[in-house]
Amino acid sequence: MTDEPTTPASGMRDFLPEQVARRNHVFDIIRDVYEGYGFEPLETPSMERLSTLLGKYGEDEKLIFRIMKRGQKLQRALDEDPSEDELADLALRYDLTVPLARIFAEHGNDFPRVFKRYQIGPVWRADRPQKGRYREFYQCDVDILGSESTLVEAEVISAAADALERLGFDDFRIHTNHRKLLDGMMEIAGIEQEMRSDALVAIDKLDKIGLKGVVDELDERGLSDDAVDTLMPMLDQGAEADSPPFDNQRTLQAIADQIEQTESGAHAVSDLESLFRVCEGSSAGRHLYFDPYLARGLSYYTGAIFEIRSDDFPGSLAAGGRYDDLVGMFTNQDVPACGFSLGVERIIDLMEERDMFDIDETPADVMVAVWDEDFAADSMAIARQMREAGLRADLYPDDDSGFGKQFGYADERDIPFVAIFAPDEKEAGCVAIRDMDSGEQTEVSREHAGEETARLILKARD
Amino acid sequence: MTDEPTTPASGMRDFLPEQVARRNHVFDIIRDVYEGYGFEPLETPSMERLSTLLGKYGEDEKLIFRIMKRGQKLQRALDEDPSEDELADLALRYDLTVPLARIFAEHGNDFPRVFKRYQIGPVWRADRPQKGRYREFYQCDVDILGSESTLVEAEVISAAADALERLGFDDFRIHTNHRKLLDGMMEIAGIEQEMRSDALVAIDKLDKIGLKGVVDELDERGLSDDAVDTLMPMLDQGAEADSPPFDNQRTLQAIADQIEQTESGAHAVSDLESLFRVCEGSSAGRHLYFDPYLARGLSYYTGAIFEIRSDDFPGSLAAGGRYDDLVGMFTNQDVPACGFSLGVERIIDLMEERDMFDIDETPADVMVAVWDEDFAADSMAIARQMREAGLRADLYPDDDSGFGKQFGYADERDIPFVAIFAPDEKEAGCVAIRDMDSGEQTEVSREHAGEETARLILKARD
Repeated sequence: MTDEPTTPASGMRDFLPEQVARRNHVFDIIRDVYEGYGFEPLETPSMERLSTLLGKYGEDEKLIFRIMKRGQKLQRALDEDPSEDELADLALRYDLTVPLARIFAEHGNDFPRVFKRYQIGPVWRADRPQKGRYREFYQCDVDILGSESTLVEAEVISAAADALERLGFDDFRIHTNHRKLLDGMMEIAGIEQEMRSDALVAIDKLDKIGLKGVVDELDERGLSDDAVDTLMPMLDQGAEADSPPFDNQRTLQAIADQIEQTESGAHAVSDLESLFRVCEGSSAGRHLYFDPYLARGLSYYTGAIFEIRSDDFPGSLAAGGRYDDLVGMFTNQDVPACGFSLGVERIIDLMEERDMFDIDETPADVMVAVWDEDFAADSMAIARQMREAGLRADLYPDDDSGFGKQFGYADERDIPFVAIFAPDEKEAGCVAIRDMDSGEQTEVSREHAGEETARLILKARD
Repeated sequence: MTDEPTTPASGMRDFLPEQVARRNHVFDIIRDVYEGYGFEPLETPSMERLSTLLGKYGEDEKLIFRIMKRGQKLQRALDEDPSEDELADLALRYDLTVPLARIFAEHGNDFPRVFKRYQIGPVWRADRPQKGRYREFYQCDVDILGSESTLVEAEVISAAADALERLGFDDFRIHTNHRKLLDGMMEIAGIEQEMRSDALVAIDKLDKIGLKGVVDELDERGLSDDAVDTLMPMLDQGAEADSPPFDNQRTLQAIADQIEQTESGAHAVSDLESLFRVCEGSSAGRHLYFDPYLARGLSYYTGAIFEIRSDDFPGSLAAGGRYDDLVGMFTNQDVPACGFSLGVERIIDLMEERDMFDIDETPADVMVAVWDEDFAADSMAIARQMREAGLRADLYPDDDSGFGKQFGYADERDIPFVAIFAPDEKEAGCVAIRDMDSGEQTEVSREHAGEETARLILKARD
């Protein structure tokens, strides 16, 4: 033994075959749903120039993994200015949004006027690892660039709802609010512009600290009693969250009269009305839940905001919203945009916990046994016939083991059938297919071993 | 415009939708073929501990991308010993083989006695970028661990042959040789152990520098004339490489008498005889080409070695071989292993150059148009019907454009059909499906718009 540890590095994970199969199952479904909505795949490199990422993530910039310069450039930095920023030239991407903005600046002219893209891939953050939080994890983003219509909001949440339903989630709510609605409310409550993001942070904590907690925190953050007394009743209009379909129009009407006095509020009400109407016949419709308390931490949202939750588990499965000022960061252009991100690692963890994976995890449909060295070429040819018939066929990887050992190997690997071609079968011109559960053997012809075995296995599965 | 460049960093690539579709097509086929052989997927993290990678790649160690320490650990390194090795704690994986050895040391006991795994994923090398050489590129490896039988060699090359054929390659040769055969030859030629790897390097250059070049280089590297005169006729027994099936048994017989006098040689002849026999009925059979000149640069091979080539292009598409001393590096165990790596980036580049991709690259089967805001919910519901019928349906992303503009958008995106639901169609209870090539419109019922459109499109494709 060497002393080198063989676990993955901190916050990293090895995925064994069963886990890879499950992860791919999830990614394949999401990809299939998104492509069904006409989203197109984009892929950007794992590494970006460090300078591309700096200045984009505020406080979290310290979580960026920096890649050291190499060769002479490294030597120069070591000699002249050995500092964090000078020693590195590249960094691992922190999210998929800044790369999207970069690729949009580079290729925007090649894209259609309204561009719908999805990207599923790893990002890296030097966060403190803990349960459910990894340093390398997948993000799964859809974004529609170039349209201000609420139709695109409706599309991104419908696609997310379809994906979650296809994965087996059912009882989730798409919490929906609008940044400009919150703006309007705060205007009416007389909250100064510079206090508003503080207020949003407090409001966003409702599901963690409760109503009283929010009020206390608003107080602490220096809001006047008057402001809080005006704000809270407006926020507190959401329907009970336990019984879909939700009467979102009613909630909105209850707020609208007051809120429409502000320009922001009127804009938000009009957007939300339109969104609720458009979503009616969509996959999102049943799940849509207007929640005036939803604030979303991130500062870049400019319109509708969303978060998918369920009473069955804490936290959210997915989130997103409209962010019209971000994609143009490299071009100083205005690019209307709406994005949505499935929390795919959380989704996979939940599906594991809840035993929601119902997929075939056998590594092969059949294993072809090998009688001895002289029969090996025949076994190999039979395996080929099986594969040509669409079966996943494993060949026993040795030519000097008894069948007992070979059956044991098939059992160990959970392979349900073993194909046997030994002197008796050769004499009879057949192949014996052994059902490893029952021990029963059925003969198929040597010549058509592939098709006949495929038929046999299909029948056994029914 | 900001000054920040928006191209990918040096040696990195952005992939636009068409490219992603093509890459995924290649990966999907390879995955499908490998799973058809009973290979199981493993995934390891992008990052390994720097110490895990150091000492494994010789000269090429300088190509490893190192990731800087963070926070206090970085500060300490900067204060105490700001050197290349002390400033970094992690590194991007350089290949998929060292991670396989690590995961085998960690999880080997959970694996079946003989473990067949595949891994497709990116690796990173700080090489000088040039045409066809990237700093982030995919590797695509299969390895079988735990068996010494030539059956596993036969399996890995058959799987590779199947994958290449499924991708559309046909006229390739699997150049095959055996390290111990070369050893035996060198022993007979009286070449000292310490000269042998130099000699292998020279022999391996045959296809680049020709026979005379090899002889000159062997001279230069200090081999005696006698040694060269004994060695070259043995190497020069390969069949003409232009006409499959190749008479590999004949070539082997021509060498065997002499070479079997050495222990290495006898071992190699027995292995190769067995391999040729086993491969007869396999997918590799037709392509198998015994090439005594094949040496393979890497030092770790211990048995059969392979390289897939074609006269149509220089270089190789794939390579591999037996390497019994590597996987046990972290456990000091003997782990027999045989691996094969498809040069998937090269394969993709070649397929692009030769126009070998024949896949549907439209982003959607149909686009649902939007008459106006009042009709948006209906259009959304129709898009949903289409998706439920298995169609990829895009919804026009705005509700205030004339149909002319909408048709233009569908054309721009190469979407072949547009679904129209306007006042006339509402009145008639139908949806009009416009063939964007012919301009012809066909009506389907509003109620069964999904299935009927799917049928229509399927028929149009025939």
